[in-house]
Amino acid sequence: MVKEFSDQYIQISRSTLINKLEKQLSKKRFEHVLRVEEMALKLADHYQADEERASISALLHDYAKEMSETDLLAYKDHPLFDSEWLNYGSAIWHGPLAAFIGNDQFGITDEQILKAVWGHTIGEFDMTLDEKILFIADYVEEGRDFPGVEDVRAMAFKDLDKAVNYKIKNSIQHLIEKEQMIYPKTILIYNDWVKKEN
Amino acid sequence: MVKEFSDQYIQISRSTLINKLEKQLSKKRFEHVLRVEEMALKLADHYQADEERASISALLHDYAKEMSETDLLAYKDHPLFDSEWLNYGSAIWHGPLAAFIGNDQFGITDEQILKAVWGHTIGEFDMTLDEKILFIADYVEEGRDFPGVEDVRAMAFKDLDKAVNYKIKNSIQHLIEKEQMIYPKTILIYNDWVKKEN
Repeated sequence: MVKEFSDQYIQISRSTLINKLEKQLSKKRFEHVLRVEEMALKLADHYQADEERASISALLHDYAKEMSETDLLAYKDHPLFDSEWLNYGSAIWHGPLAAFIGNDQFGITDEQILKAVWGHTIGEFDMTLDEKILFIADYVEEGRDFPGVEDVRAMAFKDLDKAVNYKIKNSIQHLIEKEQMIYPKTILIYNDWVKKEN
Repeated sequence: MVKEFSDQYIQISRSTLINKLEKQLSKKRFEHVLRVEEMALKLADHYQADEERASISALLHDYAKEMSETDLLAYKDHPLFDSEWLNYGSAIWHGPLAAFIGNDQFGITDEQILKAVWGHTIGEFDMTLDEKILFIADYVEEGRDFPGVEDVRAMAFKDLDKAVNYKIKNSIQHLIEKEQMIYPKTILIYNDWVKKEN
């Protein structure tokens, strides 16, 4: 599975990106990221998506997860920066921050990769195949062990949309059970899915 | 419990209001309304709230529940009318519509009553005692039989805020289980409560 990048999507070599990841992340999260890549490649193969996009999106997705609000604020003048993120913590803004960094520091301009990284936590309206693959690979990578994970993992290879819907719904329920705040866009995305189903 | 109104809050007599309710609502809902009033009066007595306000709010709360969107649109030029309601159905707008009618047709100007009726479905930020009483009376009136209702009914007389929080949380979970759309303000109110708890 591990292969060199083609220079089509990213300006640094795969080994440089892997080295950066290893320095940037705790061992536990670094290993999670590698497992997400593995799952994303399996899904890309299954659904005939671009494997290099799947790989880069997966490797980049949690790059900013352990960064501070200060790192985010370096992008406060970016036209896509939303100050509302600051009310909801890194669980919400680490996707957009990784997309900013991917573009700014790694020279990624491919919109599918940047969008997939941006929206990997809460999803998006009208997700592309690349976005769905990362969204679900992150949810069902082989290290995940929440109740029902095996069913969702099987579902991911049978009906990717169904798996996306499952994750959107269950993530909200999980937040409510833990009595944690819900980023409002999460509900707009949930509503959009309900509208399409009915 | 049944008593005549004092003319302090409403321009029609209690029996006129009851007659109007009976004509406006199905038998099942009319009986629900009377049970909500009974529970609201018990809670008002327990928490030393104004019983007449509790009674009028309860009797009025579902007055518009079986009305059509056309009835709502009669108020489309009202400064408090929100066209977003139309995307979420009568489950969302029947409270505001009952408040418009209470003010416009029954001459109610008391802000506590109108606010309680307005927000009885999804709650509100910083709810007053009157709002909380109707919100919970509607949830735990003696005809309700969802799993755990007896616990919430007991909770209502022990810790009204806890019961309010319980209803806000469980109503969202219930909507997700039924795969129904969630009115976005519901989540802002939920988040406000989470913020206060932590």
